[in-house]
Amino acid sequence: MILAFDFGGTKNTCAAFARDATGAYALSALERRASPPHADGAYDYAVMREMARQLLRGETADAIGISFGGPVRASQGLVALSHHVPGWENVLLRERVAREFQTRAALDNDANVAALGEARFGAGRGCASLLYITVSTGVGGGWILNGEIYRGASELAGEIGHVVIDPHGPPCVCGRRGCVEQLACGRAIARMAREALEREPTRGEILRDLIENDYARLTGLRVHHAAERGDALAQGIMTQAARHLGFAIGNVICLMNPARVILGGGVTNAGTRYFENVRAAARANVMPELRDAVDVQPAQLGDDAPLWGALALVAPN
Amino acid sequence: MILAFDFGGTKNTCAAFARDATGAYALSALERRASPPHADGAYDYAVMREMARQLLRGETADAIGISFGGPVRASQGLVALSHHVPGWENVLLRERVAREFQTRAALDNDANVAALGEARFGAGRGCASLLYITVSTGVGGGWILNGEIYRGASELAGEIGHVVIDPHGPPCVCGRRGCVEQLACGRAIARMAREALEREPTRGEILRDLIENDYARLTGLRVHHAAERGDALAQGIMTQAARHLGFAIGNVICLMNPARVILGGGVTNAGTRYFENVRAAARANVMPELRDAVDVQPAQLGDDAPLWGALALVAPN
Repeated sequence: MILAFDFGGTKNTCAAFARDATGAYALSALERRASPPHADGAYDYAVMREMARQLLRGETADAIGISFGGPVRASQGLVALSHHVPGWENVLLRERVAREFQTRAALDNDANVAALGEARFGAGRGCASLLYITVSTGVGGGWILNGEIYRGASELAGEIGHVVIDPHGPPCVCGRRGCVEQLACGRAIARMAREALEREPTRGEILRDLIENDYARLTGLRVHHAAERGDALAQGIMTQAARHLGFAIGNVICLMNPARVILGGGVTNAGTRYFENVRAAARANVMPELRDAVDVQPAQLGDDAPLWGALALVAPN
Repeated sequence: MILAFDFGGTKNTCAAFARDATGAYALSALERRASPPHADGAYDYAVMREMARQLLRGETADAIGISFGGPVRASQGLVALSHHVPGWENVLLRERVAREFQTRAALDNDANVAALGEARFGAGRGCASLLYITVSTGVGGGWILNGEIYRGASELAGEIGHVVIDPHGPPCVCGRRGCVEQLACGRAIARMAREALEREPTRGEILRDLIENDYARLTGLRVHHAAERGDALAQGIMTQAARHLGFAIGNVICLMNPARVILGGGVTNAGTRYFENVRAAARANVMPELRDAVDVQPAQLGDDAPLWGALALVAPN
């Protein structure tokens, strides 16, 4: 039995995997707990330990893969911090888990782990190289190169969310302007929609209804819903967000020529038209000889990507 | 003895390397011929064969590394074509050389080979990952990741020259606008200088003297020379070109976090101020936590990078 730990910030999940009769891994059991507002690192860890013990029922795990939603030093098995939960500063989580459960363990951040999960069990099967991009409230990314997680010199590779595509664009939390994140994530879609609604008081009726004329209720999801119901203003915003992402992906393809780019996260549930707009913008932003190399696919593992990736961190092929 | 072949388009070079008493490789002999206007693939190959035979003096080479100035399929040992010399279409050059010289051979394009040369023998020693960028008449690039050439799914990775940094910028040969190449290479510097001279008829006196008031004489090198002699307009253009390149490098560092970025090619001989401007622009265009990861260094092997890289293609460590 292999265990997968997903420390997700707002929720923690523990899954047990076993090989089925064909030798393929299957998810055999899963425990999930929301992280309460008072949670800290010690609390989250204790909950995860408890869930793991329930799944193990006295057995020993063959290995434990750990996905952490925040910056880590994978080579050291170290959690640097959590942006959601206090008390995770400089925790040697890999060693703690390995000692506690008397087994080998491996750790990486959620974007890298999800990338590995998609590569091995999802939309990236058969691809030696891929970039996994998660587009939800923010934009993150993880690289698989030559079949392995590529972390970069200071283990910070994959930050496509902070690639600048418009130096005169909206300010970003990182201190610069026009980062992909500020032009493509859920919050960006909500912000762009608000700007459009303010600019064009006679348009966006469906969206205005949906948010009951309260800008505070604007979310990426609601803009998407309005677009689906035929709101032209909302459709325009969704197209804009898709084009920004596609433009950035085109540049990535010129630079790295990955076999595939995989999009996960809430925003990428926006459907076929969204993906077509991303692909068209990417194709328009590569050299002609790379046009056929543009392969942008939806993620297949959804919220379970970190679990399957944590499995892949420790499971032999 | 290991031979290195450099098919450079305008010139062809053959070098012989041997290990010295300490076990280090040393260049022991070199033959170089300019490629005449009537040259074709067969002519270039015959010249290279002749130079190799002179260096071998009847001996057999232990291995031959081949750098080709044009698109190749390294995995197949295939030259796709040359942009300079006809008759190189779909030539299985690696096999031909291996058979002709009865030894093992390896082949890659000049940017990848130069990247490998710098990684093993030049400015990238000790770096597991690096991007080598050549900035001369055009802008090319090659990746070393985990100590090896990274080619990408269709062997087109490294095209930083065609990453778009200004969608409204000048048109590029690739059909798009605002590629790095059009904002940073030697030709771009000449073009930007011309635009500035036309726009500001009272400035750029030193540069105007240097080109004898003939815009046709504008080159990147002359703009650099005018800048060195204190021409403020020329200095402004050089700074702009450096900033464009540095901006693109910042984005690359966010995305890939390489241990080092190495700049070769004519334009990067522009000196300390040019490098400082590139570095400053790169530092300004990364997330704060990546600022210390910005390491941009001049290439060390100059025009010999393809030879040392060709050696590295086939030489054991």
